[in-house]
Amino acid sequence: MNNPPALEQLIDALRCLPGVGPKSALRMAYYLLQRDRKGANSLALSMQNALQVLGHCTLCNNFSESAICPLCTSEKRDATQLCVVEMPTDLMMMEQTHSYTGMYFVLMGRLSPLDGIGPKEINLDKLIKRAQDGANNQGQVKEVILATNYTVEGEATAHYISELLKTRGIAVSRIARGLPMGGEIEYVDSGTLSMALLGRKQL
Amino acid sequence: MNNPPALEQLIDALRCLPGVGPKSALRMAYYLLQRDRKGANSLALSMQNALQVLGHCTLCNNFSESAICPLCTSEKRDATQLCVVEMPTDLMMMEQTHSYTGMYFVLMGRLSPLDGIGPKEINLDKLIKRAQDGANNQGQVKEVILATNYTVEGEATAHYISELLKTRGIAVSRIARGLPMGGEIEYVDSGTLSMALLGRKQL
Repeated sequence: MNNPPALEQLIDALRCLPGVGPKSALRMAYYLLQRDRKGANSLALSMQNALQVLGHCTLCNNFSESAICPLCTSEKRDATQLCVVEMPTDLMMMEQTHSYTGMYFVLMGRLSPLDGIGPKEINLDKLIKRAQDGANNQGQVKEVILATNYTVEGEATAHYISELLKTRGIAVSRIARGLPMGGEIEYVDSGTLSMALLGRKQL
Repeated sequence: MNNPPALEQLIDALRCLPGVGPKSALRMAYYLLQRDRKGANSLALSMQNALQVLGHCTLCNNFSESAICPLCTSEKRDATQLCVVEMPTDLMMMEQTHSYTGMYFVLMGRLSPLDGIGPKEINLDKLIKRAQDGANNQGQVKEVILATNYTVEGEATAHYISELLKTRGIAVSRIARGLPMGGEIEYVDSGTLSMALLGRKQL
């Protein structure tokens, strides 16, 4: 005896969530229908609302409800710096440091050819356009800071972007790597330590 | 700089899913909005549809689109046996054995006082009513087979139900426990082995 069609359909639809397989989807469907119908309804509604109102900021490419997001319209930000991050979470982490006041560009991903994510998927055209706004007319962006992750894919992405921008005469920098705060040489991995050595600074 | 309100709301709503915390919810929201808007939309729609059309079968308490589910209306089932299971998945597993042709009652949970799940939450009133339909008027249910899990909670549930039904003069049985198919005595845990010993059958 199978599940009713509406339930099968819900289980199937839940599998579009990342990291959710058939067993989790089944568990989620039972849970929602049995114990949290109110939550399920509000989930459905906020999903539809989000799909309807959320687009990408035309300048920074972050999720935004307006054509240009509040951060990009802010007068308080330093328009000469453009920090490139992979995801909105990275942007939020940068903001939490309170040590960066420039603008952002959110790639919404990283180069990952195996997953079919190439330069087009991470909006590099848009990034070049945004960075070049400085070179000619508006004369604002003076430096692009690459703050992609120090993973293989993040590194490849940073390298690719730096090549693209340097050929267009735009100054590019990359966030430093080295020992983390409170890091002890005894316990740090050798890759990090060798990078910290190579990147040493004269005092 | 925070996420736009619609995004925050979606992230918050996703947390109603079991096993989904703030980090997973964030990842899911980004993924859906960035890579699978179609899937997100169909998820929202099938959730609303499921909430609207799915209720519980008045007889077996399983999820059903009609007041009485197809299994309960089936002429081919043996109405003298009533098998009590915890979840719809357990019912499906029982059906897959092809060795049971009776009716079912789905508790939709198990007694678990620590999680606030008592007799009322697992519909024991409904079960008693269903089982007693045999004792007086319709005269059908002759045996209630308890097929809850052999976990602490499943065992407690079975014990509780058996006490309830026996005082009402209804015959109750419990599925056997012992070595699994292909089980080797050398590798089985001692709890299972001692239960297999206690439950030995004369040949």
